Amino acid sequence: MNNHKKYNIAIVGASGFTGSELARLLCRHPQVDIRHITSESHEGRMFSDLHPQFMGILDQTLESSQVIKKADLDIIFLALPHGISMDFVKTLEDHPAKIIDLSGDFRLKSPEVYEAWYQKQHVFPEGFEKAVYGLPELHSEKIREGDLVANPGCYPTASILSLAPLLEKDLIDADSIIIDAKSGLTGAGIKASETTHFSNVSENFKAYGLGAHRHTVEIEEQLGLLNRKAAMVQFTPHLLPVDRGILATAYAKPKEAMDKNKLEKIYEDFYADKPFVRIRKSAPGIKDVRGSHYCDVFPFWDDRTQRIISISAIDNLLKGAASQAVHNMNLMLGLEEQTGLEQIPLRP
Amino acid sequence: MNNHKKYNIAIVGASGFTGSELARLLCRHPQVDIRHITSESHEGRMFSDLHPQFMGILDQTLESSQVIKKADLDIIFLALPHGISMDFVKTLEDHPAKIIDLSGDFRLKSPEVYEAWYQKQHVFPEGFEKAVYGLPELHSEKIREGDLVANPGCYPTASILSLAPLLEKDLIDADSIIIDAKSGLTGAGIKASETTHFSNVSENFKAYGLGAHRHTVEIEEQLGLLNRKAAMVQFTPHLLPVDRGILATAYAKPKEAMDKNKLEKIYEDFYADKPFVRIRKSAPGIKDVRGSHYCDVFPFWDDRTQRIISISAIDNLLKGAASQAVHNMNLMLGLEEQTGLEQIPLRP
Amino acid sequence: MNNHKKYNIAIVGASGFTGSELARLLCRHPQVDIRHITSESHEGRMFSDLHPQFMGILDQTLESSQVIKKADLDIIFLALPHGISMDFVKTLEDHPAKIIDLSGDFRLKSPEVYEAWYQKQHVFPEGFEKAVYGLPELHSEKIREGDLVANPGCYPTASILSLAPLLEKDLIDADSIIIDAKSGLTGAGIKASETTHFSNVSENFKAYGLGAHRHTVEIEEQLGLLNRKAAMVQFTPHLLPVDRGILATAYAKPKEAMDKNKLEKIYEDFYADKPFVRIRKSAPGIKDVRGSHYCDVFPFWDDRTQRIISISAIDNLLKGAASQAVHNMNLMLGLEEQTGLEQIPLRP
Amino acid sequence: MNNHKKYNIAIVGASGFTGSELARLLCRHPQVDIRHITSESHEGRMFSDLHPQFMGILDQTLESSQVIKKADLDIIFLALPHGISMDFVKTLEDHPAKIIDLSGDFRLKSPEVYEAWYQKQHVFPEGFEKAVYGLPELHSEKIREGDLVANPGCYPTASILSLAPLLEKDLIDADSIIIDAKSGLTGAGIKASETTHFSNVSENFKAYGLGAHRHTVEIEEQLGLLNRKAAMVQFTPHLLPVDRGILATAYAKPKEAMDKNKLEKIYEDFYADKPFVRIRKSAPGIKDVRGSHYCDVFPFWDDRTQRIISISAIDNLLKGAASQAVHNMNLMLGLEEQTGLEQIPLRP
Repeated sequence: MNNHKKYNIAIVGASGFTGSELARLLCRHPQVDIRHITSESHEGRMFSDLHPQFMGILDQTLESSQVIKKADLDIIFLALPHGISMDFVKTLEDHPAKIIDLSGDFRLKSPEVYEAWYQKQHVFPEGFEKAVYGLPELHSEKIREGDLVANPGCYPTASILSLAPLLEKDLIDADSIIIDAKSGLTGAGIKASETTHFSNVSENFKAYGLGAHRHTVEIEEQLGLLNRKAAMVQFTPHLLPVDRGILATAYAKPKEAMDKNKLEKIYEDFYADKPFVRIRKSAPGIKDVRGSHYCDVFPFWDDRTQRIISISAIDNLLKGAASQAVHNMNLMLGLEEQTGLEQIPLRP
Repeated sequence: MNNHKKYNIAIVGASGFTGSELARLLCRHPQVDIRHITSESHEGRMFSDLHPQFMGILDQTLESSQVIKKADLDIIFLALPHGISMDFVKTLEDHPAKIIDLSGDFRLKSPEVYEAWYQKQHVFPEGFEKAVYGLPELHSEKIREGDLVANPGCYPTASILSLAPLLEKDLIDADSIIIDAKSGLTGAGIKASETTHFSNVSENFKAYGLGAHRHTVEIEEQLGLLNRKAAMVQFTPHLLPVDRGILATAYAKPKEAMDKNKLEKIYEDFYADKPFVRIRKSAPGIKDVRGSHYCDVFPFWDDRTQRIISISAIDNLLKGAASQAVHNMNLMLGLEEQTGLEQIPLRP
Repeated sequence: MNNHKKYNIAIVGASGFTGSELARLLCRHPQVDIRHITSESHEGRMFSDLHPQFMGILDQTLESSQVIKKADLDIIFLALPHGISMDFVKTLEDHPAKIIDLSGDFRLKSPEVYEAWYQKQHVFPEGFEKAVYGLPELHSEKIREGDLVANPGCYPTASILSLAPLLEKDLIDADSIIIDAKSGLTGAGIKASETTHFSNVSENFKAYGLGAHRHTVEIEEQLGLLNRKAAMVQFTPHLLPVDRGILATAYAKPKEAMDKNKLEKIYEDFYADKPFVRIRKSAPGIKDVRGSHYCDVFPFWDDRTQRIISISAIDNLLKGAASQAVHNMNLMLGLEEQTGLEQIPLRP
Repeated sequence: MNNHKKYNIAIVGASGFTGSELARLLCRHPQVDIRHITSESHEGRMFSDLHPQFMGILDQTLESSQVIKKADLDIIFLALPHGISMDFVKTLEDHPAKIIDLSGDFRLKSPEVYEAWYQKQHVFPEGFEKAVYGLPELHSEKIREGDLVANPGCYPTASILSLAPLLEKDLIDADSIIIDAKSGLTGAGIKASETTHFSNVSENFKAYGLGAHRHTVEIEEQLGLLNRKAAMVQFTPHLLPVDRGILATAYAKPKEAMDKNKLEKIYEDFYADKPFVRIRKSAPGIKDVRGSHYCDVFPFWDDRTQRIISISAIDNLLKGAASQAVHNMNLMLGLEEQTGLEQIPLRP
């Protein structure tokens, strides 16, 4: 293996948090050259003008996404809003590069389901056939072969990793699943709005999207794949007054006798060779994984209520978006899966 | 009715958040004179030395709690830690004043249950017979007659008010109840500890006390009283990086057919003449009630999953402690129940 | 004195923080009826739709400001942006009500100075002659007589109160004054923008408006009036990751010999009969005054450097805006100056 | 040069924030092996038990510091409290390893000055002769030769870098210097106390240590060395409600004519070959450098007041402590100075 080979990548859509986190990881990745960073709205400006933390580090000029179509690239990262992203994927149909799409446009199993939950017609239904769901802990083989990888949503990443060991062994009643999830504000994006106004977030906490959040169906589909049954998940997201982090508290009823040791062993076995999932012995905080690619999971057996509680914590911008995309890239390029993902959580 | 009569009250235990919030409300209450504020550890210092926000407003000298025993008082507020409080209640057995105990020592139905959940022997089991659970929306008649009122816990206040309309009509399967609750840091008290260190709280979020929090049994007992059946509640508290506020997200399965209109009507009817419970049409945030005695409740019917989600928000230091105690006092003294509780939520 | 007379007031411009704080104070003020609340952009909606904390408390319908012109009112509060406010004041030229303008449009001594610092032509220069600068601690006599009171800026309130005792006695070299000020985010207003986005504020801190902030000249003018000399002030505002509060750290060189006792006496004497300025013995925090009308001032003498440091803390939305306006109203109506302003700081 | 040589290092005192940040940097440093991590109070426990973010990354067992004395080491980092550190340095007098002391014990020019400001007798006055002040931008030559490097304080790092270009050219009146500094809470350490209690920090802001903070003399000494004159600095620290970051706003009067271009050129020239100081064109925020070794400096000329304002931002735990220590280590070992310090600021 040639350790020093450099691959050419591009980041399409650099104005948001996901774009800037991709850039942060990729400009320190030892086997990557960032050839293009694009932004329609900021074309011609420096990347570090938009994101001043990059001053002197990544002063690259932002280009129009038009340059991508003819560019010699190995991997194209799309950090575009859903709806916009499918358009762009369509235009890249004959591009030789592999695509990692960080939007929601190709995560679901069919255009019909997409249209039902996203209330939008899909412009590139052909994409669903080749799209691979990019959760490396579950689908690494398919990801390695994939040409179009749909990077999972942030809530689904935390939720699925929290429950996968149970579903895979078909140990719980799928209709008993309740996921009470809490996300930092960056999940709402970089756009200024009433939702993102400091005074609506700071010292505040509230639920949103009750019964209707699009990530619900993404979680249900992926959990259903694991035990080959339909799952009906109650998913309730809340907005935390922090920048980063998702904590998902999942509840489920076991189908058969359970105890603490059995539960822990199920999780430890399932994630035995997954370097970025850490099975905790006590409840994790979101700060334990901030700035890192880790997903910390704490499976808990409540003997009094005979219920399983599984708590998972991730950094929504990293394991829930940018670092997961880099992980997928590593698999797609045949690199060591941990390359460029060694960041230790920043705490405090 | 004599509007201008002043009642003599005392606050026992003034160093903590609950004591300081009681003082804030009571020193502006039009029918109360604060005769004594006590603190064993700070005896002789000024109240405003401990709590500088009171400088020039309440510069009263802190006394030993010994003064209480002989004092001419109408109401005694105990803002003491559980375990300590029952000792003090015992010494006041023959005191003519009525007592409002803000600790957990007399909230449960028996010393046996207390000892099982608090892991501590109870020194005054006789107290359980006369103690009244001081949730005015449910027990106002008993509170008016009570000599010893056990002020409810903060989580139970939010949780019980969130679900009471359903239990009272026996509409839900009591074993299906899951309460995923989140509290601001002041719930952990004023004592400096690893838990209350800024760097462990800020930008962080985590669950604690899984399956074992003492408020679980308090919730179960009170919910059980409403439909005369045992309830088994899954209660999971989490720590929010904010000072004040509890948000409780409660999930339950209905026993019979339900819909949005029916659900809303149940709540509106139940709280029709309760001035401090507001039925919301959308999810409340904790900042909507901060600094006030309100409990905002949003009942939501998820038709897809056939599940009820009821979300409630309170200020843990007020409706969850100090203002609830003042509400109880108003009832016990035969005053208008809203007296001194008109604070409008402080937002932002 | 007739304690029970009610005065008619209107709040023009209710969508922002200042409007909502005015409403919070005035709807609990014992001698006021809120007759109209206006908002051009939200006409016809309920006030509590905009500000959900008021649900069930102030559900008044928002009207167009056109209603004001013919309304029978004693006091009109203008909570409009500068530039817009002067237009409205002009249309009220013949209205019998007294006006309290919370914008910056009539705070300075002349239209020329206004135009130089606000880069905008003034449409109602006649207003400057009758406008009174509404800082009650300095100008109570003029305010009582005033028909148009210009409510001070938030930074000027903290800065002027911090230094007034020194200037009034001409004790410091006016060109040595440096005010390093820090404000909570609500100072930036309710409008969603890059500045107010949670992720730009939380865990961040930065200076802005260096050498050019409009409050500079307001401070200079008012300090200059006190010793009848021109003052040249170095004023640097910074943005704090909190909702409320201003802390101003002011530095000055004394003209003559100074010591700790002398300095403290100057401040205590100057504010002896001012109920809302508290002279502290140690450095105040902004949380010591949050939600209240207090200004806490700590004058400190550094013998080593022979410099005075005066630190002041206010709630920018209250003493720096809404409660100061109510204070002015009380004076203009001949009421007790403390009426409706007894809120104790909310801490924690 | 042998790129792959590994040096043996030890971290003494691992329970605090500085120790944990040193570990975070050093366990990813390509030319270092962490041979020992010590903690007297937690001997025998795993490092990741204390700091859960390190689970699976650095599970090394904590040892007693006694092991250090005989260990084969190239560099010993001391992350001990001042007062304790000098004792340990004394016991290492004959140890062949080089020492980087992160406490304040050897930063000043003499034991006499130390005793005056730290109110403590120094137990190892001989150390002052060989100690080198470890600010790489000013003293890289001496650091390379040093056996005992005193790592600078956090406030001094930000303050000195902010003003050094002016002092080195003797352009300002040293007695006119006022440094109004603001620090995140981690500067107060990991110990639970009233100061570090969340509710005293969150939504709060206050000054402390007026006229008496020990970092004052450290700043004065280092600035004085640059122009060979005594400096008298007014230094006022404040506590920010954030974890990390220092922003220092420094004011000074120039001795001679100044303008914007001249000022900027002075700074750009002075820091031309210093990779970790970035001269900004606008005011930096602390989040622009969070989690990184950068110091961002913005020199501003106020033509109206004829005063220079220089604003600097650092991460107090990194450039103000741990990463500065690693920078010093790189120089002492003859490595590339940027090795292991390439972290891009974590924003948001």
